[in-house]
Amino acid sequence: MNSTGYSGQSWPDPAGRWDKFVSFDHYLEAARLAHQGTFDAVFLSDHPALQAVATARPLHSLDPIVLFTALAARVPDIGFVITASSSYNSPYNLARRLASLDHISGGRVIWNVVSSFNPDIAANFGSAPLPPRAERYRRADEFVEVVKKLWRSWDLRAIAAPERVGDPLWDDVSAAPIDHHGEFFDVRGPLNVPLGPQGYPLIAQAGASDAGIDLAGRHADIVYASLLGKQAARDFRDRLRARAVAHGRDPEHIRLLPGLVPIVADTEEQARRRHEQLNGHTGEADLIAAVAARFGLSATKLGPDTVLEPDAFGYDEDQQAPIGFTRSVRDLVAAEPLTLRELARRAEGGHRLVVGTAEQVAEQILDWWRAGVVDGYTVQPPVLIDDLRVFVRDVVPLLRAAGAFGTDYPEPTVRSRFGLPDPVPAVAPAVSAS
Amino acid sequence: MNSTGYSGQSWPDPAGRWDKFVSFDHYLEAARLAHQGTFDAVFLSDHPALQAVATARPLHSLDPIVLFTALAARVPDIGFVITASSSYNSPYNLARRLASLDHISGGRVIWNVVSSFNPDIAANFGSAPLPPRAERYRRADEFVEVVKKLWRSWDLRAIAAPERVGDPLWDDVSAAPIDHHGEFFDVRGPLNVPLGPQGYPLIAQAGASDAGIDLAGRHADIVYASLLGKQAARDFRDRLRARAVAHGRDPEHIRLLPGLVPIVADTEEQARRRHEQLNGHTGEADLIAAVAARFGLSATKLGPDTVLEPDAFGYDEDQQAPIGFTRSVRDLVAAEPLTLRELARRAEGGHRLVVGTAEQVAEQILDWWRAGVVDGYTVQPPVLIDDLRVFVRDVVPLLRAAGAFGTDYPEPTVRSRFGLPDPVPAVAPAVSAS
Repeated sequence: MNSTGYSGQSWPDPAGRWDKFVSFDHYLEAARLAHQGTFDAVFLSDHPALQAVATARPLHSLDPIVLFTALAARVPDIGFVITASSSYNSPYNLARRLASLDHISGGRVIWNVVSSFNPDIAANFGSAPLPPRAERYRRADEFVEVVKKLWRSWDLRAIAAPERVGDPLWDDVSAAPIDHHGEFFDVRGPLNVPLGPQGYPLIAQAGASDAGIDLAGRHADIVYASLLGKQAARDFRDRLRARAVAHGRDPEHIRLLPGLVPIVADTEEQARRRHEQLNGHTGEADLIAAVAARFGLSATKLGPDTVLEPDAFGYDEDQQAPIGFTRSVRDLVAAEPLTLRELARRAEGGHRLVVGTAEQVAEQILDWWRAGVVDGYTVQPPVLIDDLRVFVRDVVPLLRAAGAFGTDYPEPTVRSRFGLPDPVPAVAPAVSAS
Repeated sequence: MNSTGYSGQSWPDPAGRWDKFVSFDHYLEAARLAHQGTFDAVFLSDHPALQAVATARPLHSLDPIVLFTALAARVPDIGFVITASSSYNSPYNLARRLASLDHISGGRVIWNVVSSFNPDIAANFGSAPLPPRAERYRRADEFVEVVKKLWRSWDLRAIAAPERVGDPLWDDVSAAPIDHHGEFFDVRGPLNVPLGPQGYPLIAQAGASDAGIDLAGRHADIVYASLLGKQAARDFRDRLRARAVAHGRDPEHIRLLPGLVPIVADTEEQARRRHEQLNGHTGEADLIAAVAARFGLSATKLGPDTVLEPDAFGYDEDQQAPIGFTRSVRDLVAAEPLTLRELARRAEGGHRLVVGTAEQVAEQILDWWRAGVVDGYTVQPPVLIDDLRVFVRDVVPLLRAAGAFGTDYPEPTVRSRFGLPDPVPAVAPAVSAS
């Protein structure tokens, strides 16, 4: 639910308020709609920098934890996936902010760990250039480890409740220093926020590089990804589970929720026209040319109906820019014979596009889920509020009718809602020696 | 409104819930009471570390900006004084969080800049020891300068509103890089949050050292301090105004709101007993002995009714610990002949204590205000909720009747409420050259 929507050209507003990206009421309306649609959580991606392209709506403005805290105080039940960088934060402060909101929201926090790939971000945090990917991921891994240690460090249940003035409210067991000393961090602890309603927040991760998948396998409860084809989703899921097993985790404890861009209209033709218009294109030829340009292909030379070669979509594990979007297109054309005309309708802004009537969109959503290759989706409405409203009104009832989607929130925390185990089972407080 | 109150022994709760310091409902009740009493703002001090003393309520737990954001979404009008360290944050992230809440709250944010004096904090943020005071204050000064530059860096009013897809939403004038390069920070900018409803947040400052007063004179809109006597308040105010003038500022643009601990009961005797009991003391002699011990004096040798010498209260401008509390006691006994017995009733936890009936307390509050030595107070109720409730019920009506306190919130932002000027007057957008 970033800004005015997933589409860069979603800023125009019938009421003339183009700057809704800083309007709390705008986000409150979106969150309430998502709650009405019984979404498990809402999600904000983040870059702590003003983007370079000044003709698209600012995708990242209000700080995610601040905006989501305000929403948590106004909208019940729904969870909050909060993106925060492990490269440009300190573990103690971030662990504390997330744990604080986990208390205030009653256990509805999910931290989406990103390592930040953009040199524009680095320039806002000092004179040093962006560290190489490998270093950023080593730092991310240690950062998450420190944050988890801090979250576990103060357990109110591990000491008898005080009864009178002078009784200790904590001791070195219930609130234990973590004394962490690693490559990147030295942190004594304990955290000054105790364990919360769900123990501590869930971890989400989205990196698609080998280092990113390894980090997810080690730490993630929830994984967000760009997956354009069913086979690619299956392969990705298998890789993820293998990394989880390699790190000694139960692979059943990871939920895969790839991105999904729904464009829903009364007829398929109308939905296709809306897809073109979203990008400012006047028709399909225009859209196809733009897709070709994005990948450095010549639409004229290639022809819109020539089957594409996977090798036309190159990436490098060592590149600074995220490799997920390019790889997902490459995987798609490797798995299915696709022309440029077809590819233009399979992805939008790097994520899986589903265009059509509510029935068609619901069927595509259910298809992968029934096949067991995904646990759900991260729905990215091109225009907020419009596309979310249509999705909740027209698609959600079909998903509910198919038994794939709930009608209320029986579980209070996101951890219990996603069926994940308690990370810190209670232990009885030590009996005093007296 | 930290924790369960200003008193370390405020944690016992008739309902048996000793851990209200992490309960959002507890703070919501306090904020609503403060709003009912038309307080200009609520205030959270902060230390990002679990305190050393385990028998007092944890004074600092939930992150101030997270807790206050949740309250801002639920309580109208009232302002929020948010403490955040310039030693253990980065300017871009902090500027962004505060500006985000300033948008969401409609211009109700005040940032209380602290440089953090506690080695326990330093140990949570790396292996380096706490920097010397002078370095921390140089960093604080540059930090505030960078934050203000960032807050000013994106002005939506300085560009014509876009009309159609392809129009720029900002340019290098309306969203200008700050390109800051200083002793401690290199920050490119611009901030990805534009100017907000009151331009940008107010700055509060509390340091009592020479370096702290200089920082306040340069940057602060609001100053919090420990001032125990009227003459000391007058002297402090004069010093503060002189530093403001030295920095080229209008001294009328600083508001002085020293700490005040009210203990109100039906009779003066009851209020005094309550004062003793708050500290766990069984009577006045016990209280006097504790005060003597705090300053390293011998109550037995000195006698409770001997007039105190100012030189008994020593401090050093270079000491790491905050010097405000010791200096304020020294200033008090230098200005007024006071015995230990009297001193014990003049200060509580380092701040000005006013004990008595509602009438007596209101009169002491009004006395300094009428003399023009303060602009208001930072009220620190010993026990939340109880002492706040009594203050709002019994003292606030007397202040209103005296014409010293409002009954509603005619001004929407804290900046306008405190009568402070707009920091960034609008300029007309440049006319395009076409």
